Amino acid sequence: MIQAPRIAAELIVDLNAVVANWRLLAELAAPAECAAVVKANAYGLGDVAVASALYKAGCRSFYVATLKEALTVTTQLPGAALYILNGLGAQEFAACREHTFIPVLSTLQQIKSWRECNRAEQRFLPCVIQVDTGMNRLGLNPSEWRQVVSAEVAAEIAPIIVMSHLACAEDKEHPLNSIQRLRFEQVVVEARAWVPSIKASFANSGGVCLGADFHFDQVRTGIAMYGGNLEVNNSQPIDSNTKSSNRFRAVVSLRLPIVQLRRVELDGSAGYGATAPVAKGSLLATVHSGYADGLLISQSQRGCGEIAGQRVPMLGRISMDLSIFDVSAVPNTFWQQDSPAFIEVLNSNLSIDAMAEAASTISYEILTRLGARFERRYLDADV
Amino acid sequence: MIQAPRIAAELIVDLNAVVANWRLLAELAAPAECAAVVKANAYGLGDVAVASALYKAGCRSFYVATLKEALTVTTQLPGAALYILNGLGAQEFAACREHTFIPVLSTLQQIKSWRECNRAEQRFLPCVIQVDTGMNRLGLNPSEWRQVVSAEVAAEIAPIIVMSHLACAEDKEHPLNSIQRLRFEQVVVEARAWVPSIKASFANSGGVCLGADFHFDQVRTGIAMYGGNLEVNNSQPIDSNTKSSNRFRAVVSLRLPIVQLRRVELDGSAGYGATAPVAKGSLLATVHSGYADGLLISQSQRGCGEIAGQRVPMLGRISMDLSIFDVSAVPNTFWQQDSPAFIEVLNSNLSIDAMAEAASTISYEILTRLGARFERRYLDADV
Repeated sequence: MIQAPRIAAELIVDLNAVVANWRLLAELAAPAECAAVVKANAYGLGDVAVASALYKAGCRSFYVATLKEALTVTTQLPGAALYILNGLGAQEFAACREHTFIPVLSTLQQIKSWRECNRAEQRFLPCVIQVDTGMNRLGLNPSEWRQVVSAEVAAEIAPIIVMSHLACAEDKEHPLNSIQRLRFEQVVVEARAWVPSIKASFANSGGVCLGADFHFDQVRTGIAMYGGNLEVNNSQPIDSNTKSSNRFRAVVSLRLPIVQLRRVELDGSAGYGATAPVAKGSLLATVHSGYADGLLISQSQRGCGEIAGQRVPMLGRISMDLSIFDVSAVPNTFWQQDSPAFIEVLNSNLSIDAMAEAASTISYEILTRLGARFERRYLDADV
Repeated sequence: MIQAPRIAAELIVDLNAVVANWRLLAELAAPAECAAVVKANAYGLGDVAVASALYKAGCRSFYVATLKEALTVTTQLPGAALYILNGLGAQEFAACREHTFIPVLSTLQQIKSWRECNRAEQRFLPCVIQVDTGMNRLGLNPSEWRQVVSAEVAAEIAPIIVMSHLACAEDKEHPLNSIQRLRFEQVVVEARAWVPSIKASFANSGGVCLGADFHFDQVRTGIAMYGGNLEVNNSQPIDSNTKSSNRFRAVVSLRLPIVQLRRVELDGSAGYGATAPVAKGSLLATVHSGYADGLLISQSQRGCGEIAGQRVPMLGRISMDLSIFDVSAVPNTFWQQDSPAFIEVLNSNLSIDAMAEAASTISYEILTRLGARFERRYLDADV
């Protein structure tokens, strides 16, 4: 008889693996500095826990998306540099400056506001200037960049880093990589003529693996630190992903407690929409967790789990709080034991990339949607 | 010049609309009681705020998925019945009983444990028994149900409701609806022979709209309360959804602040993977919010927003914290105003069902994934 101890699914985050992945990235990127990207709650894994473990391991530069995220992690990171990637809203300059966070400024307006704050306070606090080199997302346009470097404002802005961001770094063959790199090299030349001590930051995890030409002074690593496979081709089309071995360690395991085990008594179907036929005699396991927990509906009928060393398929459409697996292949003897049963959907065999492929998306979306109802348990980094 | 006041996107939840939708459902279901389903943080909208508004409007029965969710809302709902849909883990019985929450028991093991608690304490606290009628997700099998009703345990279990759940209620034509209803009618007959005062609960929002035959004593409404359109056919295949007018009011608006407005200076592409070509001269707006906030990647290149009364398409692959829109169609004069600019992606014109269609999913997934970084603002119910 199955009765899970608790209803909550358990998300196990291996901080040792995060630290090992960060160290490998740092080694690959050396002599460039390896900054850690812990935005979006450290890609869903818990920003305070992840940032603390990396700090203990020696990391001293952290990137977040927003001021609020910076405020969450800062107390754990004394003396570290905390960069705010998405810049600042008009009402956020004061708090950013009070905590000496380093904003990434991507527009002329943001640069102007920062300069005005600096002048008003006569405190010339450091910032990062972002230049767009072809992603067309955040960062100054070429003409805006020329405006900035031709003006005599450097001392009043105090830029310490010029950065840009790669659009296709995970696709080694993509022609945009070298186009962006060449543009950025030119930007760096201009930046150094403007502020001789300025550093250059360009590569994300994918960029680290593109080679030394892409490393500049500082890399900003995210997905590989969290166990994503950079050998998966994440460029369009998503469905054509091909997998190969991952040199970064898996970070997450996700265990979904079984709430009900059912020997089907009538031929019929399972789940909403009656999309999945089930035959009399099948054995089904209904587990806690559904799409409200981040199990994307798009992996319905395509995802799988593992129990008792057996691969078991998801059955029917994922529900909001529950999912169904066909566990007919699991030996009967397994169910006779008394211990509570879980189906694992992420572990060292079931990667975030495999789940992403089943859901027609990328591992980043899988991680960042890991839900609030999971109990997060951390395997502590031995540092 | 664009500079948003804050970085956070704003999710506006119209509690008046939630209450109006609940009242309409209650009217449609009368004389059956209309219970409110507030699981999964009230479908992502904030369970405390939603449950409080419904309580003020007179709702006295609430369904959640887990004990933890019950503990979150209970203080706002004095005297209301709080049902826990997914049952109880082995370690959760004590807390459930202490708060007199009403568990929905779906397995023989759970019924046995509940009975043992009742006997040990000599407190015969109420519960719900769930019977499966064809969804094969949660609930007793036919043979298990016969076992329960043939045993003389009713007084020791104290069941107050027998329930089941519809798999295809939103597809009025689906043959499983009447199959499930006929099975449930038989279950209700057997239940009343077992416990004469027992009530029957069967219909979700879709079931309410299937007509009086489906209403029994209590309905459990969720998606329609939150503004979902039941005239959308949510049965498989998802891509074939057809829309028609929605008699339930829209509940959510979602406003994404523009962080950068860019007049493209070189022909190129936008976003990761360089999937979206952009021509020199195009006007792009990069907004705060990405898939980490619940904007599903699957709506990339297909979703849209609204600004200045103009429909604007999403451009390229949605990023983790940012999305790009092509706003070339917005009149230049609009940008000359000083006020901060937002792109709305959900409002009374842009429904959760339309976003779901663009993302090849259902409105439920759109709602439940609305992210933690949004600032939730509530339009209070006038009750």
